[in-house]
Amino acid sequence: MKAIVDLTIIPIGTGISLSNFVVACQKILIDAGLKTELHANGTNIEGEWDVVFAAVKKCHETVHAMGAPRIFTTVHVGTRTDRDQTMDDKIRSVKSKL
Amino acid sequence: MKAIVDLTIIPIGTGISLSNFVVACQKILIDAGLKTELHANGTNIEGEWDVVFAAVKKCHETVHAMGAPRIFTTVHVGTRTDRDQTMDDKIRSVKSKL
Amino acid sequence: MKAIVDLTIIPIGTGISLSNFVVACQKILIDAGLKTELHANGTNIEGEWDVVFAAVKKCHETVHAMGAPRIFTTVHVGTRTDRDQTMDDKIRSVKSKL
Amino acid sequence: MKAIVDLTIIPIGTGISLSNFVVACQKILIDAGLKTELHANGTNIEGEWDVVFAAVKKCHETVHAMGAPRIFTTVHVGTRTDRDQTMDDKIRSVKSKL
Repeated sequence: MKAIVDLTIIPIGTGISLSNFVVACQKILIDAGLKTELHANGTNIEGEWDVVFAAVKKCHETVHAMGAPRIFTTVHVGTRTDRDQTMDDKIRSVKSKL
Repeated sequence: MKAIVDLTIIPIGTGISLSNFVVACQKILIDAGLKTELHANGTNIEGEWDVVFAAVKKCHETVHAMGAPRIFTTVHVGTRTDRDQTMDDKIRSVKSKL
Repeated sequence: MKAIVDLTIIPIGTGISLSNFVVACQKILIDAGLKTELHANGTNIEGEWDVVFAAVKKCHETVHAMGAPRIFTTVHVGTRTDRDQTMDDKIRSVKSKL
Repeated sequence: MKAIVDLTIIPIGTGISLSNFVVACQKILIDAGLKTELHANGTNIEGEWDVVFAAVKKCHETVHAMGAPRIFTTVHVGTRTDRDQTMDDKIRSVKSKL
């Protein structure tokens, strides 16, 4: 089952700057072979369900190991069975009508 | 790694009523042995990371099998390493100060 | 337009305990005359759109004034025009089928 | 108070394709003079709190008027008082460390 995911990880109790944690997580996603698109409020990910969620778990483990005692994460997950759709398809579909 | 999760599953393309799908997913979570609390906008879940996310995946597979061609799901995930905390602890901590 | 909302406010850069901030926000929602239900991962709110979002804004202003330099908030918003539905209706609709 | 927002609008009960609704909402945001960045799972928005949320409300009203009887929307909101930060700053801050 393929999933298109939007991931936002918020480390809590480690100060106000979060970018080092986002970078660490970004590297995990890329190392997992996932297609990713960083945006201003998170990272879009396209891939097989199990690969995506194994990487999300590794992000939590890594951010904790980097010193964050608490993490709040939001994950938006889209799956569909009617047809194959990529992240690029989704954006193109809207932009073509704008 | 223990996680406290808030799960909201939105089947798309199956009409306006979603409760049958929510019920099916609720049963999956309970069958997985997870502690759950249904609320007006989703279901709170407490359990081991792998058990929780295996159940979330099964929810997607089941809701698709029930006829939803597309699903949009939001998952809020909290983990912490400083101490053990249950869903009840979280609510009690706020209510004691109200 | 009536809205059923799920609100989760995460103050960033103020340490690991968030309950004092949640309490302050909870009081704002109640003072605004909104129906609220605290749960383990946020607060469900039922009310008129403008009243709800004025209260959410006041939560941000208050949490900043309490010392949080940065806030990340998630809001889930449900509206419908086909019929009137309360938070209790939503829960009852699922529980009756479980 | 300036906000950086991630908006995802899911019309329910109108079939499987959502792009016409996303386009309508996108036009509302642009007409409101807001800075927007469409991405695969939503739209990032930068602007004054009141302008952003007035536009989000107008999106709901418009999507209902287009025929969606039910809408589920997620909004991620970031505010900060320690410094001014744009959406571009946030992306640059991560990319510079990758």
